[in-house]
Amino acid sequence: MKDETPMPFGKHAALLVRERQPFNAGPPPELLRRAFVTPEELFFVRNHGTVPEVDPAGYRLAVGGMVGRPLSLSLDDLRDRFPSVSLVATLQCAGNRRTELMAIEPIPKEAPWDTEAISNAHWTGVPMRAVLEAAEVEEGARHVAFDGLDDVERQQRHFGFGGSIPLEKALGPEVLLAYEMNGAPLPPTHGFPLRVVTPGYIGARSVKWLSRITLQAEPSDNYFQAHAYKLFPPQVRAETADWERGLMLGELSITAVICRPQAGETLPAGQVLVQGYALAGGGRRVERVDLSTDGGATWITAELVDEYHRWAWRFWEARLELAPGAHQIAVRAWDSAANTQPEDARKIWNFKGYMNNSWHRVEVHVEPSER
Amino acid sequence: MKDETPMPFGKHAALLVRERQPFNAGPPPELLRRAFVTPEELFFVRNHGTVPEVDPAGYRLAVGGMVGRPLSLSLDDLRDRFPSVSLVATLQCAGNRRTELMAIEPIPKEAPWDTEAISNAHWTGVPMRAVLEAAEVEEGARHVAFDGLDDVERQQRHFGFGGSIPLEKALGPEVLLAYEMNGAPLPPTHGFPLRVVTPGYIGARSVKWLSRITLQAEPSDNYFQAHAYKLFPPQVRAETADWERGLMLGELSITAVICRPQAGETLPAGQVLVQGYALAGGGRRVERVDLSTDGGATWITAELVDEYHRWAWRFWEARLELAPGAHQIAVRAWDSAANTQPEDARKIWNFKGYMNNSWHRVEVHVEPSER
Repeated sequence: MKDETPMPFGKHAALLVRERQPFNAGPPPELLRRAFVTPEELFFVRNHGTVPEVDPAGYRLAVGGMVGRPLSLSLDDLRDRFPSVSLVATLQCAGNRRTELMAIEPIPKEAPWDTEAISNAHWTGVPMRAVLEAAEVEEGARHVAFDGLDDVERQQRHFGFGGSIPLEKALGPEVLLAYEMNGAPLPPTHGFPLRVVTPGYIGARSVKWLSRITLQAEPSDNYFQAHAYKLFPPQVRAETADWERGLMLGELSITAVICRPQAGETLPAGQVLVQGYALAGGGRRVERVDLSTDGGATWITAELVDEYHRWAWRFWEARLELAPGAHQIAVRAWDSAANTQPEDARKIWNFKGYMNNSWHRVEVHVEPSER
Repeated sequence: MKDETPMPFGKHAALLVRERQPFNAGPPPELLRRAFVTPEELFFVRNHGTVPEVDPAGYRLAVGGMVGRPLSLSLDDLRDRFPSVSLVATLQCAGNRRTELMAIEPIPKEAPWDTEAISNAHWTGVPMRAVLEAAEVEEGARHVAFDGLDDVERQQRHFGFGGSIPLEKALGPEVLLAYEMNGAPLPPTHGFPLRVVTPGYIGARSVKWLSRITLQAEPSDNYFQAHAYKLFPPQVRAETADWERGLMLGELSITAVICRPQAGETLPAGQVLVQGYALAGGGRRVERVDLSTDGGATWITAELVDEYHRWAWRFWEARLELAPGAHQIAVRAWDSAANTQPEDARKIWNFKGYMNNSWHRVEVHVEPSER
């Protein structure tokens, strides 16, 4: 029976809801892979707290910390006093593909994302660099911290979601203070009226409902920078973690996912069309996508489709000849630094369930051909 | 019996010589791991042709192509008219660890590097950016091509070794026109009087005996950019390669190597000190080094030693408790983009033998303890 609960925030009825409160959801693979630029109603939603209602007239962005000229900017200021740029950029949650890690060992209290915590949009806004230049960043500033207007509760405290990126990254032309998504004002659940877009980084660094930018010597001490979104070795558990020592996530690693066929599908005999997405981090290119149906003993190269955009995912496809019977299709991508993906999710398991970029595998069954 | 042939170019007698003509050699692991900055007599040598004798008085560097102001610079010009900077940077050949790939399937006509085609030095020279600014790079230039004064023969033609890097990379503060190595003038075999140092990239992009810099819209058409130093999928062989389609190597991928103990060593009972190096590409950090003695089922985290330098390798060490008997020690590293290394060299095999960054493994035997 179909779940008749209406989908909030004008989202598509087919979204896979991973959590209702806060709302976390993403599109099923076949819809995700349908359009290079994800329509807003399909764009995945990752919330950690409330979706704040912000009055655009009263909204001000504060820029402070290690700056010579602290700023308080209205939306009109941002539109009138600064340049506007547009780019296509993919956002991916660090927890995308967590369910594969959960199948190895439970990961409590984390959103059970399958392969849908990723989407691609056309963003318009002010280059972060322009605002930082106007604020006259002081010598010694190394990180740019962001605070959101949402209300998150962690460790018995209430605060806005936050995080930071290195100043060097923030000065790149690709980092935006975005007020439009796919040609329309940001929808409430995607950060209205203003959000950070940090292409090439984990989605958590693209802070929504942005209230404050702080220039500082060290990374943000917000819970979601100093505590969550850290990668630990497989042997570490929540109880034994030294939170100072985890890898503070920033740039994304190389990944690839099969969207079609789907796991468990039964396919007619003949050529099988395999389609998916791949994403490289930090402005590196997806250079190649490999498919194997024999556990990596042999590979075939998929075709990259659609235009290349530096900060966007890459769609790919291939046609495989599969004999009748059971098959596992595995995919891996390579980036322009010749990095490729680890083979086995078990060997990169981590207790927070981040950055699972192991080979994505789909089991299918091919029917006997009619003779 | 010891090989009594004297080592050329003032190099250390213990160097592992992989080819005599042209001279290609590197230090054994225990010497390589001894000093964070590799002494010149141990620094690995990768030559594709002659070692030219350059008269420094008559030497000129030409800068041309898509520039508003072509330049011809003497060594005095470079020292007097431009800033001088120093940095520590590691160079690694794309063919490092090729022997592990050769053990899977032969790779003819390529240098059989074990783990020694890597070294770290203190470089001094002019930031490439300063020279490019003086030459007034024109709109539309995207790549910076380099040509060397050596004499290389390939496909019945003689030419200087060459290659290129993207203009965006060349403008980074870390890319040097180096005239000093470890505080002394460049030795002849390392590029006297001037070489490129492109930290974070494969060694081939640090062209020695530099004669010419050309600004252009496309990558270099030199053999070593357009043909060699491309990464192909495992299923491709030299005979079937479409040379237009290989991944043109640039940034290095993440790697780690065990220098001590060495393969086949018999160790006394008790704690075993394991030491090695790790290197991340493109300015990413080595964030973590993991060791396993059970094929990756469990891991322990090694300690990173020495100071962090952005463009240098990272030395690491760990003490393992090993029971008497045979063991395989495996290592893998993680970079700041959460990229890690592939597990199995067989699955990344390529017919030119490049970029083997699979887990490095060393088999050792631990003696029974005395009771």
